Amino acid sequence: MRPRLFTPGPTQIPERVRVAMSNPMMHHRGSEFKEILAGVIDDLHYFFQTEGDVFVLTSSGTGAMEACVVNLLSRDEKVLTVSGGKFGERWGELCVAYGANTHIHNVPWGDAVNPDDIKKFLRENSDTRAVFITHSETSTGVASDVETIAGIVHNNSDALLVVDSITSAGVLPFKMDEWGIDVAVTGSQKGLMAPPGLSVVAMSQRAWERVGSSNMPKFYFDFKKEKVALAKTATAWTPGITLLMGLRESLSMIRAEGLENMWANYARLAHATRQGALALGLELFAHSPSDSLTAIKVPESIDGIKFVNRMREKYGITVAGGQAQLKGRIFRIAHMGYYDALDMVAMASAVELTLRDFNWNFEPGAGVRAVQRIFMEDE
Amino acid sequence: MRPRLFTPGPTQIPERVRVAMSNPMMHHRGSEFKEILAGVIDDLHYFFQTEGDVFVLTSSGTGAMEACVVNLLSRDEKVLTVSGGKFGERWGELCVAYGANTHIHNVPWGDAVNPDDIKKFLRENSDTRAVFITHSETSTGVASDVETIAGIVHNNSDALLVVDSITSAGVLPFKMDEWGIDVAVTGSQKGLMAPPGLSVVAMSQRAWERVGSSNMPKFYFDFKKEKVALAKTATAWTPGITLLMGLRESLSMIRAEGLENMWANYARLAHATRQGALALGLELFAHSPSDSLTAIKVPESIDGIKFVNRMREKYGITVAGGQAQLKGRIFRIAHMGYYDALDMVAMASAVELTLRDFNWNFEPGAGVRAVQRIFMEDE
Repeated sequence: MRPRLFTPGPTQIPERVRVAMSNPMMHHRGSEFKEILAGVIDDLHYFFQTEGDVFVLTSSGTGAMEACVVNLLSRDEKVLTVSGGKFGERWGELCVAYGANTHIHNVPWGDAVNPDDIKKFLRENSDTRAVFITHSETSTGVASDVETIAGIVHNNSDALLVVDSITSAGVLPFKMDEWGIDVAVTGSQKGLMAPPGLSVVAMSQRAWERVGSSNMPKFYFDFKKEKVALAKTATAWTPGITLLMGLRESLSMIRAEGLENMWANYARLAHATRQGALALGLELFAHSPSDSLTAIKVPESIDGIKFVNRMREKYGITVAGGQAQLKGRIFRIAHMGYYDALDMVAMASAVELTLRDFNWNFEPGAGVRAVQRIFMEDE
Repeated sequence: MRPRLFTPGPTQIPERVRVAMSNPMMHHRGSEFKEILAGVIDDLHYFFQTEGDVFVLTSSGTGAMEACVVNLLSRDEKVLTVSGGKFGERWGELCVAYGANTHIHNVPWGDAVNPDDIKKFLRENSDTRAVFITHSETSTGVASDVETIAGIVHNNSDALLVVDSITSAGVLPFKMDEWGIDVAVTGSQKGLMAPPGLSVVAMSQRAWERVGSSNMPKFYFDFKKEKVALAKTATAWTPGITLLMGLRESLSMIRAEGLENMWANYARLAHATRQGALALGLELFAHSPSDSLTAIKVPESIDGIKFVNRMREKYGITVAGGQAQLKGRIFRIAHMGYYDALDMVAMASAVELTLRDFNWNFEPGAGVRAVQRIFMEDE
């Protein structure tokens, strides 16, 4: 049995990335490192489809989210956060922690936010300074319509639109400048196909104007310090050097493949996986499913925690279970990362084998066949 | 020519650590990772010589310093920071950024703080809530007498003693509980012999009481969240998984060698390097030199920036130059990290060869001989 990782972060990463990280250490102020950082920054502009500034921070994605809050806002400023899962909730928690006047728009877990609800809020609250949303909600597998929301935010307010694109950047179509997204964040262990430990913030010029007036306390996550450093092809603080060595490789691979091809591949993997689940009589959790990951309901007759453990212990496949209120109720399969069609066929097989172990009633092979059919149709 | 890294962070790291980091990715909530984290935490207790809590954060050392400020203090509380270099200055900047009533005690760069000055301040300012000091000041190569300072702080105040041990932990004798240090921080790329990207905070029970009353805003660096996570052998946020895989290896090596042996080895490398410099007619910058690194003055007749560049470009050895006001005036050689006696002999040779290139007047071989003599005497 060989271990296969299918969690929606960290995801499986290419051998080329792993090998690059085992190279000898280098100093972060030397020309060798500067070349790596310059290449990474250049490719991240492409990755986010933006000409704005891009910073690499040494933190998890949550650190980058905090960085947005403390750099873009001042105390008591009105903000809207959209919460339809664990990560949408986090925007609200962060804004509250730093003393913003925080309005939380709750969406049932499994649903995408209705863009009209954002429009309504902004029309009634013209003093809203920023809207914080989640593009792909990792806890529920739901994708939101960021393009439409961006249009609504800019046509109805002066608010900034700040997008958690942690599990969408590089995976779902994402065009920062074209859509008018002001700030986007991601983490290294998702669509970037590198280990966790780095996060990325991409910023529009419009967002920069807010940074100048922000009065929230900050130091480690201070964008002004990062901007000064970046002008010298450096980071404000000692960065995760090995992780950047790895990221250099994965970004080169992404650039060689092309974003449009990456997006299309992920859409195909996700579509096939959803078809496989349905063919086994399983239900999808998300009503607007993200192509980054698929959240599948565990049948009520099966203990969801045991199901996930069984798949890992007997078949070597690690998927994620549900978090918070979804604990034991769903399992989540990553598509973002270093995966191809045959990985999803293997995954479907593991799901079938595990369902069999729990005496679920289904036609053996139906899931694998449904997954494979999508790839056959594509030829 | 093969590259050799002698910068005081990042430092050279063992092959075993590098290889461990190229292993396949694993999930941070699984049992395989929990075993790694548990081992790291256990070894870090030994590393800091403490039975208090130890947290691993995904950030540079500066992030851990910020974490101390925002978790231990409340706004307007009086603190003393000692500033005798770039990193001592940072404590002051952090405390100011978060609105502490910050008193900065300046010490000339190159000198260690006089513990009596701290005593005097505390006697005159009985409301001081915390004292922030630097054990080994990386910008100047100076070591401070933390043991004496700890005694003074506890005998003269209720203040917490918070120590930046970023370039001292694992390198200089450091006994957190025995000396009565309340909080200590380090980074992964120093005495821990791993790449940068992780930081560590070790905390006494006494420090915890302050965390409970702190009103400074925080989220990513919230110790309470880390404590809850640690009880489940986890971190609050997705950690730098590959870096922890590496740290597991280096800590195993440190534990196998024994801290006392590590300390003795570093002391010997530093002593030999200092003798080598003096034998070449060079002057040391630090009046109380740290054994973590040696700061050597560049002779006035030589351009310090060109000197460092020459050593790297022609002989493959990367040392650090001076920072801020010391730019071009000193060069700094790391001892902490994965170095042995012969590394320091090679380093002395590179210094001689480079001095020759700049027409410095010295007896060829005198530096190498002086370094080697120390190792011969040890037999």
